[in-house]
Amino acid sequence: MDFTTKLAAAWAKNNSLLCVGLDPDIEKLPAFIKNQDEPFFAFNKAIIDATADSVCAFKPNVAFYEALGTSGIEQLKKTSSYIHETYPDIPVILDAKRADIGNTNDAYVTHIFDYLAMDAVTLHPYLGGEALQPFLARKDKGCIVLCRTSNPGAGELQDLLVDGKPLYEHVARQVAETWNLQGNCQLVVGATYPAEMKAIRQIVGDDMAFLVPGIGAQGGDVEQAVKAGVTSKGDGLIINSARGIIYASNGEDFAEAARAEALKLRDEINKYR
Amino acid sequence: MDFTTKLAAAWAKNNSLLCVGLDPDIEKLPAFIKNQDEPFFAFNKAIIDATADSVCAFKPNVAFYEALGTSGIEQLKKTSSYIHETYPDIPVILDAKRADIGNTNDAYVTHIFDYLAMDAVTLHPYLGGEALQPFLARKDKGCIVLCRTSNPGAGELQDLLVDGKPLYEHVARQVAETWNLQGNCQLVVGATYPAEMKAIRQIVGDDMAFLVPGIGAQGGDVEQAVKAGVTSKGDGLIINSARGIIYASNGEDFAEAARAEALKLRDEINKYR
Repeated sequence: MDFTTKLAAAWAKNNSLLCVGLDPDIEKLPAFIKNQDEPFFAFNKAIIDATADSVCAFKPNVAFYEALGTSGIEQLKKTSSYIHETYPDIPVILDAKRADIGNTNDAYVTHIFDYLAMDAVTLHPYLGGEALQPFLARKDKGCIVLCRTSNPGAGELQDLLVDGKPLYEHVARQVAETWNLQGNCQLVVGATYPAEMKAIRQIVGDDMAFLVPGIGAQGGDVEQAVKAGVTSKGDGLIINSARGIIYASNGEDFAEAARAEALKLRDEINKYR
Repeated sequence: MDFTTKLAAAWAKNNSLLCVGLDPDIEKLPAFIKNQDEPFFAFNKAIIDATADSVCAFKPNVAFYEALGTSGIEQLKKTSSYIHETYPDIPVILDAKRADIGNTNDAYVTHIFDYLAMDAVTLHPYLGGEALQPFLARKDKGCIVLCRTSNPGAGELQDLLVDGKPLYEHVARQVAETWNLQGNCQLVVGATYPAEMKAIRQIVGDDMAFLVPGIGAQGGDVEQAVKAGVTSKGDGLIINSARGIIYASNGEDFAEAARAEALKLRDEINKYR
């Protein structure tokens, strides 16, 4: 099943726009997990089992796995396989923020979509749509392009005015009009910038989903983000939370605590749809 | 030794602005290498030994290693260690084109600078300098920011006019004026755009090196690129060639053939300095 279809089905089935960010940090794991052979996989498995019925997607950020070296990448691959085998209805998004020239992107496509078996990946727009063709050509996969990022300094480049409009609006328009020919593109739009999110939704219409980081530790407001980005059908958002959910407790009860936080956030999001 | 100092010393010692791109592709390796346990490492070792006295840097692109899964990453790590141990004067640049929010960049820094022991890394500018602080704070390492990329579609975003100047010029100016406070920034400028390279050199002056992809398979002209980018001291460039050198032959003589091509290209570059 292609990513877009799988995502829409998960929104409906779990009545949820919540995505749990699987970003394990060895320093922050519960002590009894830290000493296991594959601590990231053990931790993720418990978080996944506790939250799979209340999310629309899982999103590991590859940087946290790479920080552990090849053992981290092995555990990322196992995490992806575990989700596909156990919860085949839930898409897995790799937050990798990749983009190179075409010839090199072929190799990234092999790694991300084939080796790691991801359903979607995040991409930088700076090299343009021509360079991204190896990703865009994979009609079954999601190509989630950075448009307005959640960080405080996002505006340094993204707010530069081009023909009187900020650069991020041009990115949104280019993706919608010329990169999304296969219907497999989405955008990253930070919860920390609700006014910008609203403008982007107006530009691209209801067909393109937004991956929304920035809720929780980064300070984004749930009500403002949902109201700014939701489509007329009440969906169209993949609202990510990592630290606020996966580190809700670092005791033996970390998985139950994560479940409680996930349900709370899912319900809060649903209030404003 | 910090990257900037190491690079300048390698330019002088080997009288070379040439960088060899270590981008192994299993399909293109000589048959007798392909069947070894660690074909990428065996291939790289032979190429490195054959060219180390004629280059100013080696540049593996991480995508080619990731395409092989964790075994590829292991071989990348071994390649980096081998260069540091055997040719400690030659810097190793990881072409990884990374950039995420600050918290996540901490994890990339651990992977790239500590685990893989790279001297420098390529970075996307889209999230701005604030997000890149974890990289920029590593004064001893090179932060090579994408400015004007070598691909045919580079202009889609990079040529957009901001205050009458193309976006890539703004990136060059921002990096020079506000990101390079530690003197550890460089720029990626494609050989396929010599006029743009000349403009960028005028903006940033002589202190910032350019990593120059696009010679060879991508069609960039050596004379035009060198003349456009060289500093008043006759250096300032890291001119990369991968396919034209490492696949000069796919027989038993691949390393000698690579050496011959590397020497030829080094000498051609030197003609125009």
